[in-house]
Amino acid sequence: MPQRVNRQFRLAARPVGEVKETDFAYREELIPTPKDGEILVRNIYLSLEPTHRIWMSDRDGYMPPVELGAVMRGMTISVVEESKNPEYQQGDLVRGLLGWQDYTLLTAANTRFVSKVDASLLPGKLPAYLGPLGMTGCTAYFGLIDVGQPKAGETILISAAAGAVGSMVGQIAKATGCRVVGTAGTDEKCSWLKEELGFDETINYKKYQPGAELEAAVARACPNGIDIYFDNVGGAILDAALSQVNLYARIPLCGLISTYNSQEPVPGPYNYSQIMMKRVRVQGFIVGDYYPRWPKAIAEIARWIKEGKIKYSLEIVKGLENAPRSLLKIFQGTNQGKIIIKLSDEPG
Amino acid sequence: MPQRVNRQFRLAARPVGEVKETDFAYREELIPTPKDGEILVRNIYLSLEPTHRIWMSDRDGYMPPVELGAVMRGMTISVVEESKNPEYQQGDLVRGLLGWQDYTLLTAANTRFVSKVDASLLPGKLPAYLGPLGMTGCTAYFGLIDVGQPKAGETILISAAAGAVGSMVGQIAKATGCRVVGTAGTDEKCSWLKEELGFDETINYKKYQPGAELEAAVARACPNGIDIYFDNVGGAILDAALSQVNLYARIPLCGLISTYNSQEPVPGPYNYSQIMMKRVRVQGFIVGDYYPRWPKAIAEIARWIKEGKIKYSLEIVKGLENAPRSLLKIFQGTNQGKIIIKLSDEPG
Repeated sequence: MPQRVNRQFRLAARPVGEVKETDFAYREELIPTPKDGEILVRNIYLSLEPTHRIWMSDRDGYMPPVELGAVMRGMTISVVEESKNPEYQQGDLVRGLLGWQDYTLLTAANTRFVSKVDASLLPGKLPAYLGPLGMTGCTAYFGLIDVGQPKAGETILISAAAGAVGSMVGQIAKATGCRVVGTAGTDEKCSWLKEELGFDETINYKKYQPGAELEAAVARACPNGIDIYFDNVGGAILDAALSQVNLYARIPLCGLISTYNSQEPVPGPYNYSQIMMKRVRVQGFIVGDYYPRWPKAIAEIARWIKEGKIKYSLEIVKGLENAPRSLLKIFQGTNQGKIIIKLSDEPG
Repeated sequence: MPQRVNRQFRLAARPVGEVKETDFAYREELIPTPKDGEILVRNIYLSLEPTHRIWMSDRDGYMPPVELGAVMRGMTISVVEESKNPEYQQGDLVRGLLGWQDYTLLTAANTRFVSKVDASLLPGKLPAYLGPLGMTGCTAYFGLIDVGQPKAGETILISAAAGAVGSMVGQIAKATGCRVVGTAGTDEKCSWLKEELGFDETINYKKYQPGAELEAAVARACPNGIDIYFDNVGGAILDAALSQVNLYARIPLCGLISTYNSQEPVPGPYNYSQIMMKRVRVQGFIVGDYYPRWPKAIAEIARWIKEGKIKYSLEIVKGLENAPRSLLKIFQGTNQGKIIIKLSDEPG
C-alpha cells in the first residue's frame, strides 16, 4: 500500500566492524511534490547487496560514501506516480539508486541516473529486474564475459557461489561450456548449486582450515587447475585459489566481502606472487562502467531464463522496516538467494 | 682467456633467507666434445638478475627450480667454438640460458633454447645484448608496452627504477610521452635517474616510513595520481602505489624483489581492495612468453640507443669466480647498473 508519508532510513552512523541496525535512523517526511521538469516516483522494490557496506564506510570506495544523515543509497524498481517531465508518464517503471524510502523526487537533471524498465522481457517478474535482470545479472555477465573471458573447457572457481552474483556467474559459465566449481558456507547451499543450478563441484569452505587444508580441497575440486577465479570474497579462498591457478588465469575481482567488516587493515593474499609466476590477470570491475551495454545483457539473460538455462532465487521481504535487519543477514550468510525488500504494491 | 677446463658453479644449497656464497659450489670439469648434431659454445658474458633467487628456491615458480647439484642457470652471450650442426658455424654468437660455466654443450634438440645474436645492431657493445638488447630490455619493453599500455600524458611510477629493468622502463615511458616517477634507495641513484635518464621525479623510499609517510611521498610525486605502476619490488611501495592509483590503472607485475629472501609467508598488499575500487588491472608477465617478438623489440631499442634516447649502465665484473658475491650485491642494492660477469674474451 502506498504510504501517506515518505518513510525513510537514513545513515545514522558509520559501522564499526559489523553493520548494526542502529547505524540506520528511521524518519518520516512529507511526500514531495514535483515541480516543472520533475517526476515523483514510488519505490516498489529495494535491493540489498554486500556493497551497501562499502557505501556506509568513509573509506575510499568506487562511489562517494553515503553522507551521514542522508537517505541510505539503494537500487530500486519504481513507478512514476506524477510527472511534470514530458519524457516520463505516470505508470512508467524505472530502475535507479533511489534509496531506502517510499518516494523519490527526481529533478530533470537527476533523471539521467534512472533508466526505464521494459517489464515485457519477463512478464510478471518485476523483482527479477533487481536481480538477474538488473545489477546482479549484469555484474555476473560483464565480470565473467568481459573480464574473465571464459573459453569452453576451462575450469572456473566462484566464491560466494550461492550468492546473488555467484549463482548467476556459475550458470552463465556453464552456458559457455566451462567446468564450474563453487564455494559456499553450508551443505544446503552446496546441494542447491549442484542439484538445482548444475554446478559440477562445490566446496563447503567452512569445513576446512584456511591454508593448506583449504588449498587441498580446492585442488581436489579443480584437478585441472583454475583458469578463472571469480572473486566475491577475498581472504582465505582467494589465497587457496591462487595456489591452484593455471598459466594465464584471470581473476575478475567483484567483491571482497570477507574484509568489509574488518576494523583492522587486511593483508592482501599471501600467494600474491602467483600472479607473477603464473602470469595471472587480476582485474577489478564495477558494473556501472558497463551501463550502456546493460540492455543487451539483460535481454540475453531474460532469454536464458525463459529457456530454463538460468534459475534464480529471490528472498522477498515485505516492509521497509525490515531493511536494516535484512542487510545484516547478507553478512551472516543466512539469506537464501538475493534479498529484495518490498516497499509497496506493484501497479495494478 | 679461454680456460683449459670447464669451470662451473653448481647449486649447492637452497638459500635460507638471503643468498650466501656457500649456496654455490665451484667445480671443474673436462670441456665436452660435440658429437653429430651438437655444438660446443664458449660463454663470454653471464647476466645476473634478481630472478636467480627464484630459480634457487624450490617454491612454485615460473620455471622449474634449478636442481640441487646442477649447474646454476643463467643467461649468457656465447660464441660457437665447435659445430657439428649445419645450422651453426664456428664464430656464431648466441644467447641462451647456458649457465654459470665456461663451456656449454648443446644437443641438436637443445639448440632451440638459444637464439643467434646480430651483433651489428649495436657494434662493439656485446654486453648490451644481455642488458638493453636482451632479456632486460625486452622485459621493460613488453611489460610497459604490452601489459602497461601507456598513453601520452599518463603518470607512471616505477619501483627499483635505477635497476636494470626499471631504468629502461622509465626511458621507454618517456619516449611514449608519459610523466615518469621512479623509486630508488639512495640519493645518488635518484640523481642519476633525474639528471642522466630524464625522469620527471624520484622518491628515495628509504627516507620514509612504510605506510602513511611513504604514501604521502608518492602522492606528492604523483599529484595527478598513478596510471601505471610498474612493479619490480612488491611490499610497502606496492601498497603506497595502490593508495594513489587512478581509475583503470595498470600494474604490470614484473618482480617482487622485496619478498624473495623472506623465510615467512609474505602478505599481499594491504590496499588490495583498491584493485576493485579503482578497477585496476594487475597482470603478471614473463619476458620469455614474448620470445618470438624479441627481435623486433631489440631492433627498436637499438635504434633508441643510437638516437641517444636510451642510456644504460652496465657493471662488468671480470671472472666467473666473482659471480656468487656479485649476485649478493643485487639484493643489497649496492650495484650501479646491471651486473654482467665476463667469463672469457670476445672473439677477436
